[in-house]
Amino acid sequence: MDPARPRSRRARGQAGARRPVYDAASLLAVAVAEFNTRGYDATSMEDLSRAAGITKSSFYHHVSGKEDLLRAALERALDGLFAILQERHARSGRPVDRLRYIVRRQVEVLQAELPYVTLLLRVRGNTATERWALERRRSFDATIAELVREAAAAGQVRADVDSAVAARLLSGTVNSIVEWYRPGRPGAGELPEDVVRTVFEGVLPRG
Amino acid sequence: MDPARPRSRRARGQAGARRPVYDAASLLAVAVAEFNTRGYDATSMEDLSRAAGITKSSFYHHVSGKEDLLRAALERALDGLFAILQERHARSGRPVDRLRYIVRRQVEVLQAELPYVTLLLRVRGNTATERWALERRRSFDATIAELVREAAAAGQVRADVDSAVAARLLSGTVNSIVEWYRPGRPGAGELPEDVVRTVFEGVLPRG
Repeated sequence: MDPARPRSRRARGQAGARRPVYDAASLLAVAVAEFNTRGYDATSMEDLSRAAGITKSSFYHHVSGKEDLLRAALERALDGLFAILQERHARSGRPVDRLRYIVRRQVEVLQAELPYVTLLLRVRGNTATERWALERRRSFDATIAELVREAAAAGQVRADVDSAVAARLLSGTVNSIVEWYRPGRPGAGELPEDVVRTVFEGVLPRG
Repeated sequence: MDPARPRSRRARGQAGARRPVYDAASLLAVAVAEFNTRGYDATSMEDLSRAAGITKSSFYHHVSGKEDLLRAALERALDGLFAILQERHARSGRPVDRLRYIVRRQVEVLQAELPYVTLLLRVRGNTATERWALERRRSFDATIAELVREAAAAGQVRADVDSAVAARLLSGTVNSIVEWYRPGRPGAGELPEDVVRTVFEGVLPRG
C-alpha cells in the first residue's frame, strides 16, 4: 500500500486511539485480500484474524466488525475514482478529451488500488454498505455516460453506436482489467495508454 | 430457454427415465437463477427446491446434487461459445474477419444464453467442476488471443498495442455485457454490431 495515501476515517480514528497507523492499514489490506479470495459473505472475523496472525480480540481493538472493513475498503476505491473527476483535465476541455483523460486515470487508479477496486466491482448489494457502494458506483458511471453523451452531441464520438451503450462498453472494458492485471507484469506502464488507444481508436490499424 | 437447443447429457437422461424433458430443463433454469443471485457456494439444495416449488426429494429425482446442475449450466454456456469456433466464418478467411465474426457471434450467444454465460463468468475455481469450466474458458480465450496475434502479424490489427493486451481487452469488453444487458431492452438487436464497431473501430467518429 502507498503510505502517502490518506487512509479512511475509521482507520485513522481507530489507529490514532490505540495503535500506530500502519497497523489499521495493514489489517485492511489483509481483510481485502480475504474478501477477494473467499467472497465477503463467506469471510468470518475468525478467518480475518487467522489471516492477520492475531487473536480475534486483538482484531476487535481495531474494528467493530467485518462490515467496517468492507466500508473502509470500498471508500478507498471510490475515493480514488471520484478524485479523478476533480482533476483539472477531467473538468475542462472538450468532452472527448476529458473522457480520454478520465479513462487513462481510471486505469492508473485501478492499477494502484487493484484489490480495493476489485472488491468494489464484485459488490452485489447484500448489505447496507454494499448498496451504498453500488449507488456511488452508479453515480460515477452516470458521470461518464453524461460525458459520452456530450461528446456525441458535439460530434466527437461516433453517432452510429448508442451513446449509453458506448458508455457501458467503455466502463466494461476498463473494469475488466481487474480480472487479469497483476502488478509487476511486463508492460504495466503502457497499460493506461493501451486502453485509451483501444477504446478510442479500436483494434484496427489507424486508417 | 430455446426448446430447440440440445440439453445436457444428464438432463436428457433423467428426463427420459422419469419426467417430460422440459422439467429437467426448467429445473436447470431455476437453479442457474438461484446460483446467479445467491452465489453458487451459498445456494443449498433446500434453496433450489424452494425456488422450484417442489420438495427436496422430488428435486433429487432429477439431479444427484447441486454440482450436477452447475456442470450442466456451465456446459450449456461453454458449448454455445465453442460451437461458434466451428462455424464456417470463424474457420476461414482473413484472421481479422474471423475475429470480427467471432466477436459478433459471442455477443449473440451471450444474449441468448445470458444466465448461463453470467454463471460461467463468475466461476472462481472452488470445486472440480468450476476448475474444469475455468480451464475450458482459458482454452477459448487462448484461441481468441492466437487469432489476434495472427491478425497483428498480418498487419490487420494495430501493432502499437500488445496483442495479448488487445485480446484481453476484447474479451473483457464482450464479457462485461453480462453486467448490464437484459433481454428485451431496446436496441438489443443492434448490440452485436455496436460491440463489433466499438471494439474494432473505437468510440471516435470514423476518420
